Amino acid sequence: MNIDVIKGGITAPKGFLASGIHCGLKKSKKDLALIYSTNLCNSAAVFTSNIVKGAPIYISKDNLKNNKAQAIIINSGNANTCNGDDGIGKAKLMASLEADQLNISCEDVLVASTGVIGVPLNIDLIKDSIPELTKTLSKEGGNDASSAILTTDTHKKEIALKAIIGGTEVKFGAMAKGSGMIEPNMCTMLSFITCDINIEPNLLQEALKSSADLSYNRISVDGDQSTNDSLFILANGLSKNPMIQEKNEDYYAFLECLNYINITLAKSIASDGEGSTKLIECKINGAKSIKDALKLSKSVINSPLVKTAMFGCDANWGRILCALGYADVPFDPKRISVNFESKIGSINVCANGQSVSFDEGKALEILKQDEIIIDVNLNLGSFECSTWGCDLSYEYVKINGEYRS
Amino acid sequence: MNIDVIKGGITAPKGFLASGIHCGLKKSKKDLALIYSTNLCNSAAVFTSNIVKGAPIYISKDNLKNNKAQAIIINSGNANTCNGDDGIGKAKLMASLEADQLNISCEDVLVASTGVIGVPLNIDLIKDSIPELTKTLSKEGGNDASSAILTTDTHKKEIALKAIIGGTEVKFGAMAKGSGMIEPNMCTMLSFITCDINIEPNLLQEALKSSADLSYNRISVDGDQSTNDSLFILANGLSKNPMIQEKNEDYYAFLECLNYINITLAKSIASDGEGSTKLIECKINGAKSIKDALKLSKSVINSPLVKTAMFGCDANWGRILCALGYADVPFDPKRISVNFESKIGSINVCANGQSVSFDEGKALEILKQDEIIIDVNLNLGSFECSTWGCDLSYEYVKINGEYRS
Repeated sequence: MNIDVIKGGITAPKGFLASGIHCGLKKSKKDLALIYSTNLCNSAAVFTSNIVKGAPIYISKDNLKNNKAQAIIINSGNANTCNGDDGIGKAKLMASLEADQLNISCEDVLVASTGVIGVPLNIDLIKDSIPELTKTLSKEGGNDASSAILTTDTHKKEIALKAIIGGTEVKFGAMAKGSGMIEPNMCTMLSFITCDINIEPNLLQEALKSSADLSYNRISVDGDQSTNDSLFILANGLSKNPMIQEKNEDYYAFLECLNYINITLAKSIASDGEGSTKLIECKINGAKSIKDALKLSKSVINSPLVKTAMFGCDANWGRILCALGYADVPFDPKRISVNFESKIGSINVCANGQSVSFDEGKALEILKQDEIIIDVNLNLGSFECSTWGCDLSYEYVKINGEYRS
Repeated sequence: MNIDVIKGGITAPKGFLASGIHCGLKKSKKDLALIYSTNLCNSAAVFTSNIVKGAPIYISKDNLKNNKAQAIIINSGNANTCNGDDGIGKAKLMASLEADQLNISCEDVLVASTGVIGVPLNIDLIKDSIPELTKTLSKEGGNDASSAILTTDTHKKEIALKAIIGGTEVKFGAMAKGSGMIEPNMCTMLSFITCDINIEPNLLQEALKSSADLSYNRISVDGDQSTNDSLFILANGLSKNPMIQEKNEDYYAFLECLNYINITLAKSIASDGEGSTKLIECKINGAKSIKDALKLSKSVINSPLVKTAMFGCDANWGRILCALGYADVPFDPKRISVNFESKIGSINVCANGQSVSFDEGKALEILKQDEIIIDVNLNLGSFECSTWGCDLSYEYVKINGEYRS
């Protein structure tokens, strides 16, 4: 199947509008966003598995019980988490105020929040801005929306693509935000996908979950799984493709598009991790199962010692073997090989679990690039898996030592 | 029981000598140490559970099969890990060369190494220095030995104490090193204990293991469990106390001494974690079990976001709730309270899972101190547990971005 990346983001599919404005939760940057479909959508979502959940998650889950939604209102600058009943009430109010303005049912509005935890949400700022937020909805508003959901991200994360599914041109749009407190599990940070495809809601949910497992659930910036991670999809059916009702060719074409979007955004979140100077991929080959490979890969991607070595462009492969060794997965250290790869080449630094003589100058050049692959072969089986993360820099410490102050 | 902390370290008990010299593995600092008892000791050890183990661990395990030892030779500057059969051969050679020099059996010499992984050990430097290392053994040599085992540690970690056990004065000495790649599990970094007590070897092993669980296994600097973590004890019996052969009052008095030593050294390792500016204790109260409390406490102590907030003296308690929430232990977020404590006072920042209004100025003063307690009450049960760690600073990144280069 041909997947064509096209210009634009969340408003690329038919019938979707968006807006993003400054309401005052942040000092000067945009902090309130709206996604709206001109007709009611089938909808699905995946949420954080953290026991401590943001108030918006309870409201969005409730409003998704009928698998329908038409709008999503999102604020940054305050996570509305650990705010007790007051937080729940305010998340509900966000949905109902926006529903009134849009003249749709309150149950068809979803809510997401991101920012600091444990500070009561100033709902008046949002209330006062909802008329403007709604009035400025437009096809061009995707750009503003993708800015308004950011926290410490250094750039917007959006993508749009088109594909032929069931003989019909279908379009997708998406936006996401990172960039700290990132180790999604069964979920993601905030990510929103729109599409004009016709698909039955249970299949929509299943596809979304399985795609999240291959993308957001394979990245880690700091091992901190957020309280507010949410991935939403709205499918309004306006492309008029034959309704997808079973796991046929069209379903798998749809899933391929979802994977493309989610893996792209997940890698973008990882490479824009707080303070990151480069994207790191840890690819485990030759494992006895994907589960083993995933666990080993995550252990390496999360190791502060590996992350700082990558920041320092130091081919210190011993730290990789160390991180593999405490992942609680059996393997034979004597069979392991490790290569470092980037766009300028590849270098073998460890074979049979031991040092090989290698050109330190070449290794340095490879590790200076902005996308590095740590390629590990266990030589035990035929399964492989990659996860993505980033290096650990002074800037991460700076950002997070001063975040709330 | 009265435990008296006394001057000195590893050579405080009767019959123990030590030395520490520069052999050339490091540029100019001391890098080779020896501990020696004038008579054969009962001995026990606990080693890393990392699958990738340093070569010295295999040799020391072998030599401990009869629970006897008389000397320990230790080098820093090279971990002798991931060096294949060559590494094993050299670790064995270290033991046999030292045994020859001391004129004791090779099986009575234990070996430990710490430093970079995956670089072949220059055994000639050690070989050439063993005569001097042995010749300089003395009662005063404990100080040199405790310097020679350090890597990125900023100061020596040693302690000595005396207690009356079985009506007899018994002395203990100990030294340890941190300070990165620290999340021991069923084991520790390098730590060495000497004592002149009479104790049956199986009880010695049991006491050592249970004490390690309460001390080294409850600290974390960076979540990276080392390949070389080892905790050794030598008990030469010269105090002539009645031999401890069962779990009687004397055994528990001995255990109390061990716990005092190991918790002191463990906290010292945590507070001297790479780049650390302060010691952090996370105390979980009101848990349903110690196991739950330990898991929750470790999750907070390991969270990069909590660690950077502590570095920034930021009372960002939301990150603590977030870290508790992904620890995979059930609890009710609505019951949680959080206090920050230091020597100048305590402040409540969260009650019933929500923000309470607190004096930010007072919180800042409390968090500026060099020992901070994060005191969490789950209000669920009656169990409690503390773990210790440190903050995450620019310096950690600097040390580890440049370690090998």
